[in-house]
Amino acid sequence: MLKVEHIGIAVSSFEKAIPLFSKLLNTNCYKQEEVASEKVRTAFFQKGETKIELLESTTPDGVIQKFIEKKGEGIHHIAFEVADIHAEMNRLQDEGFTLINPQPKEGADNKLVCFLHPKDTNGVLIELCQEKKL
Amino acid sequence: MLKVEHIGIAVSSFEKAIPLFSKLLNTNCYKQEEVASEKVRTAFFQKGETKIELLESTTPDGVIQKFIEKKGEGIHHIAFEVADIHAEMNRLQDEGFTLINPQPKEGADNKLVCFLHPKDTNGVLIELCQEKKL
Repeated sequence: MLKVEHIGIAVSSFEKAIPLFSKLLNTNCYKQEEVASEKVRTAFFQKGETKIELLESTTPDGVIQKFIEKKGEGIHHIAFEVADIHAEMNRLQDEGFTLINPQPKEGADNKLVCFLHPKDTNGVLIELCQEKKL
Repeated sequence: MLKVEHIGIAVSSFEKAIPLFSKLLNTNCYKQEEVASEKVRTAFFQKGETKIELLESTTPDGVIQKFIEKKGEGIHHIAFEVADIHAEMNRLQDEGFTLINPQPKEGADNKLVCFLHPKDTNGVLIELCQEKKL
């Protein structure tokens, strides 16, 4: 794991949250992107080497909407950049962590991603992400 | 706000969580420190320019213990490094955010810190921190 690539924050409404986080972070949202497979829209802000990724559900049955219904708006996950996602998935599985998706899947921002089950990580949802090679 | 200085994670037991996060992050805990005024013990891991700060309550009535009782173990706050904490507190107050402590207070890791009320920030507890000058 190289660095905190982004912190994902679940929000109910981009209309309200994007201007608010622009003021909070004192920088503009530089990109929005929909990830249809995850039923989510994403909005990105950069601070140092880390991005703040706002997450808004595109459907009432999406994973982000369900998270908000259960826990309220707030921090959803921490994503760590890795050099080789397959090697890191193997290392963590050997250490006893549980992979939510056994193969890397397509995430936002040109990434291959894998989530670890929070039952093994003190309730913290961890994402591994690796930049896709062209 | 310059960068994500650290991410605070509330845990029930350092005995269990420190070895676990060492395996997860593939790096050792490099420092532990008690912040008596906050009734909390902290344990730090470095990843890139950001620290992962585990937080364990020292008393049953501490803020971290109460957080865990209400929400379970998990991500507690995001801390952003600022160059001038007073200037940033003024800027954010002018933007309509609520400061939990109206004056900077002593935090772990030789920092002056201020927290923003999560009611204004989509449920995310935000800390500002500035390295104390000698």
